[in-house]
Amino acid sequence: MIIIMEPKASEAQVQRVIEFLKSNGFEIRFNRGEVHTVIDALGDKTTVTPGRIAAFDGVKEVKVIREPFRLASRDLKSEDTVIEFSNGVKIGGNNKPVAMVGPCSIEEDYDGLLKVAYAAKEMGCQFLRGGAFKPRTSPYDFQGYGEKALKYMRNAADETGLLTVSEVMDASDLDLMCDYIDVLQIGARNVQNFKLLHAVGKCNKPVILKRGLASTIREFLLAAEHIMYNGNHNVILCERGIRSFDSAFTRNVMDIASIPVIKKYSHLPIIVDPSHGTGQRYLIEPMAKAGLIVGADGVMIEVHHDPENALSDGKQSLPIPMFKEVMGRINELTDRLHYEKECLSANVVKEI
Amino acid sequence: MIIIMEPKASEAQVQRVIEFLKSNGFEIRFNRGEVHTVIDALGDKTTVTPGRIAAFDGVKEVKVIREPFRLASRDLKSEDTVIEFSNGVKIGGNNKPVAMVGPCSIEEDYDGLLKVAYAAKEMGCQFLRGGAFKPRTSPYDFQGYGEKALKYMRNAADETGLLTVSEVMDASDLDLMCDYIDVLQIGARNVQNFKLLHAVGKCNKPVILKRGLASTIREFLLAAEHIMYNGNHNVILCERGIRSFDSAFTRNVMDIASIPVIKKYSHLPIIVDPSHGTGQRYLIEPMAKAGLIVGADGVMIEVHHDPENALSDGKQSLPIPMFKEVMGRINELTDRLHYEKECLSANVVKEI
Amino acid sequence: MIIIMEPKASEAQVQRVIEFLKSNGFEIRFNRGEVHTVIDALGDKTTVTPGRIAAFDGVKEVKVIREPFRLASRDLKSEDTVIEFSNGVKIGGNNKPVAMVGPCSIEEDYDGLLKVAYAAKEMGCQFLRGGAFKPRTSPYDFQGYGEKALKYMRNAADETGLLTVSEVMDASDLDLMCDYIDVLQIGARNVQNFKLLHAVGKCNKPVILKRGLASTIREFLLAAEHIMYNGNHNVILCERGIRSFDSAFTRNVMDIASIPVIKKYSHLPIIVDPSHGTGQRYLIEPMAKAGLIVGADGVMIEVHHDPENALSDGKQSLPIPMFKEVMGRINELTDRLHYEKECLSANVVKEI
Amino acid sequence: MIIIMEPKASEAQVQRVIEFLKSNGFEIRFNRGEVHTVIDALGDKTTVTPGRIAAFDGVKEVKVIREPFRLASRDLKSEDTVIEFSNGVKIGGNNKPVAMVGPCSIEEDYDGLLKVAYAAKEMGCQFLRGGAFKPRTSPYDFQGYGEKALKYMRNAADETGLLTVSEVMDASDLDLMCDYIDVLQIGARNVQNFKLLHAVGKCNKPVILKRGLASTIREFLLAAEHIMYNGNHNVILCERGIRSFDSAFTRNVMDIASIPVIKKYSHLPIIVDPSHGTGQRYLIEPMAKAGLIVGADGVMIEVHHDPENALSDGKQSLPIPMFKEVMGRINELTDRLHYEKECLSANVVKEI
Repeated sequence: MIIIMEPKASEAQVQRVIEFLKSNGFEIRFNRGEVHTVIDALGDKTTVTPGRIAAFDGVKEVKVIREPFRLASRDLKSEDTVIEFSNGVKIGGNNKPVAMVGPCSIEEDYDGLLKVAYAAKEMGCQFLRGGAFKPRTSPYDFQGYGEKALKYMRNAADETGLLTVSEVMDASDLDLMCDYIDVLQIGARNVQNFKLLHAVGKCNKPVILKRGLASTIREFLLAAEHIMYNGNHNVILCERGIRSFDSAFTRNVMDIASIPVIKKYSHLPIIVDPSHGTGQRYLIEPMAKAGLIVGADGVMIEVHHDPENALSDGKQSLPIPMFKEVMGRINELTDRLHYEKECLSANVVKEI
Repeated sequence: MIIIMEPKASEAQVQRVIEFLKSNGFEIRFNRGEVHTVIDALGDKTTVTPGRIAAFDGVKEVKVIREPFRLASRDLKSEDTVIEFSNGVKIGGNNKPVAMVGPCSIEEDYDGLLKVAYAAKEMGCQFLRGGAFKPRTSPYDFQGYGEKALKYMRNAADETGLLTVSEVMDASDLDLMCDYIDVLQIGARNVQNFKLLHAVGKCNKPVILKRGLASTIREFLLAAEHIMYNGNHNVILCERGIRSFDSAFTRNVMDIASIPVIKKYSHLPIIVDPSHGTGQRYLIEPMAKAGLIVGADGVMIEVHHDPENALSDGKQSLPIPMFKEVMGRINELTDRLHYEKECLSANVVKEI
Repeated sequence: MIIIMEPKASEAQVQRVIEFLKSNGFEIRFNRGEVHTVIDALGDKTTVTPGRIAAFDGVKEVKVIREPFRLASRDLKSEDTVIEFSNGVKIGGNNKPVAMVGPCSIEEDYDGLLKVAYAAKEMGCQFLRGGAFKPRTSPYDFQGYGEKALKYMRNAADETGLLTVSEVMDASDLDLMCDYIDVLQIGARNVQNFKLLHAVGKCNKPVILKRGLASTIREFLLAAEHIMYNGNHNVILCERGIRSFDSAFTRNVMDIASIPVIKKYSHLPIIVDPSHGTGQRYLIEPMAKAGLIVGADGVMIEVHHDPENALSDGKQSLPIPMFKEVMGRINELTDRLHYEKECLSANVVKEI
Repeated sequence: MIIIMEPKASEAQVQRVIEFLKSNGFEIRFNRGEVHTVIDALGDKTTVTPGRIAAFDGVKEVKVIREPFRLASRDLKSEDTVIEFSNGVKIGGNNKPVAMVGPCSIEEDYDGLLKVAYAAKEMGCQFLRGGAFKPRTSPYDFQGYGEKALKYMRNAADETGLLTVSEVMDASDLDLMCDYIDVLQIGARNVQNFKLLHAVGKCNKPVILKRGLASTIREFLLAAEHIMYNGNHNVILCERGIRSFDSAFTRNVMDIASIPVIKKYSHLPIIVDPSHGTGQRYLIEPMAKAGLIVGADGVMIEVHHDPENALSDGKQSLPIPMFKEVMGRINELTDRLHYEKECLSANVVKEI
């Protein structure tokens, strides 16, 4: 921790900071610069947070040297986390990127869902995704079919040999969801719903954590840290676009560079969601590829058997025939990248 | 609802959209422009959401004419909402702006809290605010003292004749909180935690809803709508800064203009929180005044009896002597504005 | 300058950085932390920029302690800059805030302009503002009347006893403009047009520098530094809104807090432009007041004699009768603030 | 153009708008909705800009249906623009993506520059890029060597058989630059320096136009329109990152999706600059690939013979050996994409 004092900080103010740090077990070195006094404090930052030091009179800024996430960091665990499912599917490390596909919301037409599941299976995808509990900006929008949707998903996944992914919105739904769902998803709007993070942290299901619309990369990894700190280390990050000043052509701006950044600083797997990231059907293929070529461990894509009658997100869902074409081309890319991946990920580390 | 078709949309695509809208009870008028075909659809948008229409092939964009919030809108209720407490304190309308002050977190030093409460009362403030359950970006930061903190707050408030405000982070804490707290606060990170919004919507306590770091004004009002739609119309909005590209000097950018904008479109009261909005002690006074002069119905200010030893947010808390000076000057302003307010709010409407 | 090395930086990499800094006259102190090595370098950063150090292998981050602006900084000049005109008008310091009003563009109707100028004079304003050369996002929009507009402005200002403000878009127009204009304006889009900054830096006219849509406060002050470094110290900053994720209700987000921030770190005067900052007529009055109450040295407001026929920015221009009402209320506020200002600005410094 | 009236707009206000539009040759259709009156106006928007209509009392919002760029739009010219140089190099359409490499600034070490140029040629690159006139945020940073740098570049390019790219900062430098430079670059900070756009619009050299830090896609294409409107249709767009709320790990956020968006709406070629887009050496390879796989027509990469001694941007420059490795892998990708491109670009259009 580095403490930069105000230019006009008094000697007494400097001494108060130093004494407080020393009394909390920090080793202190300090330099009087031409303008600013700078204090280096070496010690355990979990006992004294930077905010506490910032509150002292005369302190201009506190700079933390070490990244605040620990369990999610490569400093603590250098090898990639790989999550393995009972059917042998693996996410992360040098495994071939996975694909999670399905409708935004699970609807009443079970046959439609089954068509999507069969198409997913046919194209080599491993996961059926869909919403049972839907977070909606407006209370007048469709909020999901709840348990019925979960049953539909489980049946369609079992019939086709897929795993299931669905969003959990509240800790009180967790028990119910765990009966049907293989991977729990935390949505972008709940990325700092810490009660929910703690609850899934105590769960034994893998968790997909979506980046919030305004999450910095650091905050995103700290949200993962909340889950891991509560015991669940099987966290899969998901880049799905952040909010920017331009939403005329795409709903969000996909921060594709965040994928190699996170790969450098964290061992957790990360997937990419071009459907929510762009909100545009025609951008799903290029942006899925962009995510994969920079190292994503999987893609999440919205597919609907009849997008024009979808109850949510039809605009960004692929109809089944287009999905098959797109997924075929994505598979060509992932097949090739899979062979290259081991050297590529090695390079990323070397190039630092 | 206006539907703008792609330049190359076929006649069949146009007809499919029109027929779908007609079959859902919309009245249709449409114009073939030089480049784009535009369809005007008049009818009840709660039955067919814009997203459904956007999913049709050939649709470029769907433009909703009417704001999506209803209960929160002045269209439905033109006069200001005024929230009245059992001790006669009122928020909103032409009432004098209120002040909510207290530490970021309630800590173990009850006497310190009491000092703050007495100072608040002395300066004419109506509410003691403080955190019992703290949302923290890092799991290694202090998370609040829970029920003990609630008890301390209630006692300090009762001893001094104040009302209490505290943040609720989870629906499962609501019963406990309602035993101690007069106004429930929803934090910025939970502004789209819809389960929580629904839960406080079923509660009979007034709710302060903080704007999310990336909430548009429309989404902010829709979050209020979620609460109101579930039955609780006593919602107090709170502008507390949004995320921008510059956080070197202030933690967030306070969107002061959002206050008169919201006053124009909604009847709900809105307060301003310069402590979180700026993260800087020296900006609390000017930004509180900026919020009040544009029409805010109150201020929320962090005050601590010993900021250098605060467990959270000390940097942005006022120590008691400075608080008294600042609050004195704020009171001078609110006294004056109170007299002017009736004509001012009348002007805002006239000037549209 | 503080240099934070990567966790895996080798001893050789650390030594290369240290030797380079020493050979450039820096005094070095360095600390080996648990994870990171941190190097403090004391010396003249104008000889070695942080970017050069950042390029060394093993360097994670370079943190500059001292703000990069010098001439614009209060460190170098603690008292407020006051700009005085030949007719006795003063901007900055404890002088009463000024008002600059006029149409977005100077148009062909000279009588209309004269009406605005007389209204401005009547309401105690000191400056007539208007565009002769207009920066326009689209090439199909009106680009200004050039020299004819400058002549109209000069005549209208001379007839009414006002000073003139107009935007310069290109160094080659400077000589022409200086014949007619008392204060040169640099528009938001040119805030980092360094050739233009250098050209006005060599001019002897005061310059209004508008904050760019994506300028951080630091970059904004560095743009002023470019002008000052070239010799012209009469720079008036102007907050006019920054770009955010929400432009549904206001064109930009006004960063009102930037005004007291800049007052703390710089001695330069700063004014506020609510017309461009919000793009909404009904927000001009509240946002002008918000800027003034936090310490702005003036306001810039668009006024048009017939906004419905204005060639640009009619939406955000006040018609003359409404301007008189609004300006009357703004004058009441500035009169009062003028008396309070000396103590207020003293407080801002004390409260740091 | 669609005009949405305020809910409380009077009949007289509606009629004033309609009459004004009719008198300007627009055909009018209007619908009275439950809440809002909506006016559709069909006609030539170059005679009446939306801003003029927005200024009428009672108008809530003006929505332009047709994109405001014309010459840059695929509506006007559906086939891709291809720019061909005298040595046969081509940019755009189905041609193999090009590479522009070189140091941020041209420095005094000519041999160093020549090493970069030979490496570029060896790796199949077509352009040598480098700065002679440098826009710098601080006046204390290195500003470029001017004409000497241009001469160095020309010589190194001629010796190795490359074309030259360099940034023009001022119209007055254009004649000088045209003597040495094959492609003029407009920097991100000058994207709305309209005088400069007009000047290069009258030039017969191709222009690379970099997206501004806060440019929307629409504004970016309108900036290109300014150049084209003045006669120069050889515009190459360049995505180089936009400003976001997170700059801790990358200088900017690269908006990779903007590439396929622009490909859909415009016929102009677009390249990608991962050096400025990320500011991080280790992200150049992945982000160059991300840009190429979504359809970019080229990459621009900073390469320096000795980054630790570079006068600017060393941190984001590749040293020559690393450049060769990275460029080798990029070439493998572009070779493959070149074969796929024709079908890919066909798909992008089909999928709309």
